Amino acid sequence: MKHSPRVQRLIDTLTCLPGVGPRSAQRMAYHLLERNRDGGRLLAAAMADAMDGVQQCQRCRNFAEEALCSVCADPRRQARQVCVVASPADVLAIEQSGEYHGHYFVLMGQLSPLDGLGPRQLGLDVLEQRLGEGEIDELILATSTTVEGEATAHYIHDMVEGTTVSLSRIAQGVPMGGDLEYVDGATLAHAFRGRRPL
Amino acid sequence: MKHSPRVQRLIDTLTCLPGVGPRSAQRMAYHLLERNRDGGRLLAAAMADAMDGVQQCQRCRNFAEEALCSVCADPRRQARQVCVVASPADVLAIEQSGEYHGHYFVLMGQLSPLDGLGPRQLGLDVLEQRLGEGEIDELILATSTTVEGEATAHYIHDMVEGTTVSLSRIAQGVPMGGDLEYVDGATLAHAFRGRRPL
Repeated sequence: MKHSPRVQRLIDTLTCLPGVGPRSAQRMAYHLLERNRDGGRLLAAAMADAMDGVQQCQRCRNFAEEALCSVCADPRRQARQVCVVASPADVLAIEQSGEYHGHYFVLMGQLSPLDGLGPRQLGLDVLEQRLGEGEIDELILATSTTVEGEATAHYIHDMVEGTTVSLSRIAQGVPMGGDLEYVDGATLAHAFRGRRPL
Repeated sequence: MKHSPRVQRLIDTLTCLPGVGPRSAQRMAYHLLERNRDGGRLLAAAMADAMDGVQQCQRCRNFAEEALCSVCADPRRQARQVCVVASPADVLAIEQSGEYHGHYFVLMGQLSPLDGLGPRQLGLDVLEQRLGEGEIDELILATSTTVEGEATAHYIHDMVEGTTVSLSRIAQGVPMGGDLEYVDGATLAHAFRGRRPL
C-alpha cells in the first residue's frame, strides 16, 4: 500500500531532520495525524517562521532576530574579548558553562576548501578587518579539534601574527569526571603537553 | 543564554514529535537553521498541508485525501471481508504482509471510557449499522492484545452475536524467527491454546 500523496510528502520531508530515517519519519507523521494535528499545525507555523525570520547578528554572525544578537546587544559583556566558534550550538554550550563573559565570533562552519568553505564564507575577512581596526584585544579560539578545526585555528593564528592581539586556544585535556582508562591517547597526549604547575 | 523567541518556539513545538525531547529538539532546530533552511521550509509546508488536507475515508475511517481511501476505492479488493484495526499504522503493517485482500475498518483508538473513547468515538455505531445492512460477510479482529484491545474485541463480539456474520481474530502465538526461550509466558500460553493439527 502506498501512502496518500500528502502523507508521503510529510514523511519524505521529515527525514531532513537529523537522526530521522524513513521509519521514524513514518511514525512521526502518523502520530501527528492521529493524535496531535494542532501540535503539527503549531510546529509547521513555528518552523516556517523560524526559517525566514531568524537572521544572523551583524557583529558576531550568530543567530539573531534583530540587527544584534542578545550577547552583542548586552552592554555588560566585554566587547574587546572575542571567542571564535564554529557554530551557534557551540555558543550555547559555552554560555551554559557560565564561565565566559566576552563576545563571540561565529564562523558557521570551519575551513574546508573542498566543500567550498573558504575564509570568505566563514567571515574571516570581516574578523580580520575588525582586528585591523583595533576593536579586539583578546581572541580565544574554541574551534574543534578536527582537521578542519585545526586548519581554521592555524589560519586565524597566521592572521593575528604581527598584531598586538593576544591569541589563545581553550585547553585540550581530560574531561571532568572522566575515567582516565577510557580517555583516548591523543587527548592524554594533549593533557600531558598542557600540564600546569599546581 | 536564552534562545531568541523564534528559535525557542521552534524548539518547543518540535517536542510534540514522538521520541523528541528538549535536547534533540534543540539539535534539530540548530541543524535546520545552520544547514538546511530550504528543507525546513519544505517540511513546514508539507506538515501544514498534511494536517489540514488529510481527512478520513468515509467508509473505513483510514486516512484519505479523497472521499474514499485507496483500499476502499480499489474494485479488486473484497468489500465483504472487513478487518478491524486500531490505527492507520496497523493497516500499513498488514498491507506490507501482502496476505490480506479485503477492506478495513479503522477505529482510530481502542475502547477506553476513562479517556473519553466510547463506541461512538471509535465509529462502532457506523460499523453496527453496516453489519445490520448486510454489507459484511466476514469480520476479522486485529485489535491489539492490551486491556483496551481485548475490551474492544469483546464489544465487537457482542455486537456481531446473533447475526450471520463470521467473526474471527488473528492468531496469537510465537512470532516468526523468534527464539522460544525469549517468548513470554502469556504468548506461549496463547500459542498452545491456539495449536493447529499438522
